[in-house]
Amino acid sequence: MTAVSIDLNADLGESYGAWTLGDDRSMLGLVSSANVACGFHAGDPSGLLATLRLAAAHRVSVGAQVSYPDLRGFGRRDLDLPAVDLTADVVYQIGALQALARAAGTHVGYVKPHGALYNRIVHDEQQAAAVVEALVSLDPSLALVGLPDSEVGRLAEAEGLRFVPEAFADRAYTPEGTLVPRSEPGAVLHDPVEIGERMRRLALEGVVIASDGSKIALTAETVCVHGDTPGAVQIARHVRDELLDAGLTIAPFVA
Amino acid sequence: MTAVSIDLNADLGESYGAWTLGDDRSMLGLVSSANVACGFHAGDPSGLLATLRLAAAHRVSVGAQVSYPDLRGFGRRDLDLPAVDLTADVVYQIGALQALARAAGTHVGYVKPHGALYNRIVHDEQQAAAVVEALVSLDPSLALVGLPDSEVGRLAEAEGLRFVPEAFADRAYTPEGTLVPRSEPGAVLHDPVEIGERMRRLALEGVVIASDGSKIALTAETVCVHGDTPGAVQIARHVRDELLDAGLTIAPFVA
Amino acid sequence: MTAVSIDLNADLGESYGAWTLGDDRSMLGLVSSANVACGFHAGDPSGLLATLRLAAAHRVSVGAQVSYPDLRGFGRRDLDLPAVDLTADVVYQIGALQALARAAGTHVGYVKPHGALYNRIVHDEQQAAAVVEALVSLDPSLALVGLPDSEVGRLAEAEGLRFVPEAFADRAYTPEGTLVPRSEPGAVLHDPVEIGERMRRLALEGVVIASDGSKIALTAETVCVHGDTPGAVQIARHVRDELLDAGLTIAPFVA
Amino acid sequence: MTAVSIDLNADLGESYGAWTLGDDRSMLGLVSSANVACGFHAGDPSGLLATLRLAAAHRVSVGAQVSYPDLRGFGRRDLDLPAVDLTADVVYQIGALQALARAAGTHVGYVKPHGALYNRIVHDEQQAAAVVEALVSLDPSLALVGLPDSEVGRLAEAEGLRFVPEAFADRAYTPEGTLVPRSEPGAVLHDPVEIGERMRRLALEGVVIASDGSKIALTAETVCVHGDTPGAVQIARHVRDELLDAGLTIAPFVA
Repeated sequence: MTAVSIDLNADLGESYGAWTLGDDRSMLGLVSSANVACGFHAGDPSGLLATLRLAAAHRVSVGAQVSYPDLRGFGRRDLDLPAVDLTADVVYQIGALQALARAAGTHVGYVKPHGALYNRIVHDEQQAAAVVEALVSLDPSLALVGLPDSEVGRLAEAEGLRFVPEAFADRAYTPEGTLVPRSEPGAVLHDPVEIGERMRRLALEGVVIASDGSKIALTAETVCVHGDTPGAVQIARHVRDELLDAGLTIAPFVA
Repeated sequence: MTAVSIDLNADLGESYGAWTLGDDRSMLGLVSSANVACGFHAGDPSGLLATLRLAAAHRVSVGAQVSYPDLRGFGRRDLDLPAVDLTADVVYQIGALQALARAAGTHVGYVKPHGALYNRIVHDEQQAAAVVEALVSLDPSLALVGLPDSEVGRLAEAEGLRFVPEAFADRAYTPEGTLVPRSEPGAVLHDPVEIGERMRRLALEGVVIASDGSKIALTAETVCVHGDTPGAVQIARHVRDELLDAGLTIAPFVA
Repeated sequence: MTAVSIDLNADLGESYGAWTLGDDRSMLGLVSSANVACGFHAGDPSGLLATLRLAAAHRVSVGAQVSYPDLRGFGRRDLDLPAVDLTADVVYQIGALQALARAAGTHVGYVKPHGALYNRIVHDEQQAAAVVEALVSLDPSLALVGLPDSEVGRLAEAEGLRFVPEAFADRAYTPEGTLVPRSEPGAVLHDPVEIGERMRRLALEGVVIASDGSKIALTAETVCVHGDTPGAVQIARHVRDELLDAGLTIAPFVA
Repeated sequence: MTAVSIDLNADLGESYGAWTLGDDRSMLGLVSSANVACGFHAGDPSGLLATLRLAAAHRVSVGAQVSYPDLRGFGRRDLDLPAVDLTADVVYQIGALQALARAAGTHVGYVKPHGALYNRIVHDEQQAAAVVEALVSLDPSLALVGLPDSEVGRLAEAEGLRFVPEAFADRAYTPEGTLVPRSEPGAVLHDPVEIGERMRRLALEGVVIASDGSKIALTAETVCVHGDTPGAVQIARHVRDELLDAGLTIAPFVA
């Protein structure tokens, strides 16, 4: 990829009512793009409005983190949604966040599906098409973030949408370039130094070392970092510093 | 008022999942404005999208029927929402409906609060201000429908919003011009002929006969008709015919 | 089967808040067992209490119609629930209905899973075991209704539960004894006379005519009839009359 | 009161899905009674089951912490529930927790309303009667915890229920014996030593020093301690130690 600029994104706005999750304030000082929840897996309207005001103050780009309707399962449980329902659910969520963003003095520039929906549209053509249809029918200028070489990526580009391939800072990759499933040992990386070094190579050379030690090509315009634990915030900070030290610019992929 | 044009509005999109309520298709042939639910008291995204497509096809104006979050109580139970939460809840709902409307080829032109919220902001200054703040912060060109001579009306106009006073076709009025509470006998009218005649006088002369027989002045730019039962649809049809027979035009108050 | 007694069951209590579904009062005059919703796919507490009081007055047996948590989808959308969550969800629902039943002067005698959950535990061993575990841990004297020759039936009996095989009055069967999927033509039967005649033979001879015309053996201790439309109530009445005319007794399988 | 035994209670099971609240494990080592959430303001079934298993292991008594249906507001927002709905909602919640408790090897011995419902039934006769009716219709052997000298207390005792008056360890009292509202300065106490000393006097002498310095009589069979922050757990530990040092026994008021 040998990019001079890369985007860092994180999931924010994932508190709900009396329950707090993540450290939105710290993360907004580190990332260039904020995937803000839309109320279906997390995020209540007044909490989202507060997060969006912070995002506006930090001049961080905002994406709609759309999800299956599943507060109880945090959007991580696979749900057989008919395509017509999924499209409408996604339009509804983007619109709700667009309005909150406007009230907060910012706007929604992209969409990133969350959790089980994110994983399902890597391969499920019907649900992938339903998500793409939501963006096409609402606003085709919205970018769509997802896994490289995925069904949703192919369909999005076929429909003329901008598809933004994503890498995960703290996840191991198979030799085929897919994520090692969380159920397998070594799927999640914990060493800030190793993670920072991996992301530096990814950004500069477009390669990552796979779980079998082989070097694989990986295209990513944005890198996902987590912020739901103090340790995660520290890793995010390290990835950022490593990329800046390497002379890269950290900048959003959409305004 | 001696208007040559009057608006008829009805609550639509109030089904939910497997449960059907009202006859959206019939009502869209009768009214000029559709108050479409936003998912908080009724209406799921794919059902709302279908209703909005019908509204677009009938060239009926669309309003966001915002509510307290209360599916179980259909938004009819009073809820002590802090102002900051109410504002954000209203912004969220309007935005969700705006996006669905855009996907359906139409747009949201006004906001009409529903049920317990509608009644509370007649007199509750804090909640009224929270609703007004939602429109101001999101889009001050949105009109706001409510009871004439209400707290929300005064605050809306003080903030530069267009406030649209509303009359109810099938409700009795006190000599003071307020609605006779539903708990009292005679609060709801059932005779299509009487209701049609009342609305004809309201539209042409700006007066209505109160529950004590006195004639009172009543300002209304829009008249609410119901469509949740076959009998209600018939009353709506009669009101419409009566107004047309009287030489009035039935037209939306916003595009 | 050549039974002298057979049970008729129907899904009841499936209204929610302002939305009405089905004709509980009529159906309670026809069936011997009522599968009462538990609030996860339908049914709010005060509505359920009213249905349970009617069931008590009609001396109809009561079952807990447990479901995935999915009001929007009426429990008809497949959900990947971890076993530990499914077991707890089922215990929660049974307990809620048990308490409402007690307050209404009756009790819960059996459990019948609903919709997507019903279909999934026909073959999904993990979810079937999770449902069985719920009954075992809460009260092993509860009977469990399901499809004959199913995973859930085998696991229930292995754990010492009473499993009650069920037939569907208005559904076509494959030569293998499974239900013809709703997506295929002829899956749902509509002729009251044909349906009544089929159920008479099933009850008396233990056979049903499959979709290819062959005669197959089918074990059923209870027959499900629907009551969600006026036509459905009429079919249920016809099935009941046909069975009574044939000299059968219609009686619940549990007290 | 000059009691030789006093009960310590705390709110537990208040996490929800991915969101954690409170330190159930630590608190179960300190209190004699656990008010376990029922899913309406907090608590999902599998999380509740885990908390109930811990409570069983610690031999702590279990109460149902019933609430308005309000996850978003954590049950802290006042809701105008019709009496018939409130009674059914309370029965539903108690039953759900009873079943989970049975599956966990314990049982529900009492009911403690939560948040806005707790405060409202101090003075609202209709809602207080609706809660009392729930216990009477379900199981009159359930005890009911509430504020001394309250509407709910009077109604509960008039119906033959056991009413258990409660004190709050970290709250200031008015000279009239009611809680100083949270909106006023000094309403919540923070000094573990002061709190411990107050509760020791309350338990031994039946008095507490009010906000104006006067000594008032206060009847309490149980003392509520909080555990939602590390500081709160420390205060609870201090109260417990102080009471034990004073020679008191800490024991549940019901088995």
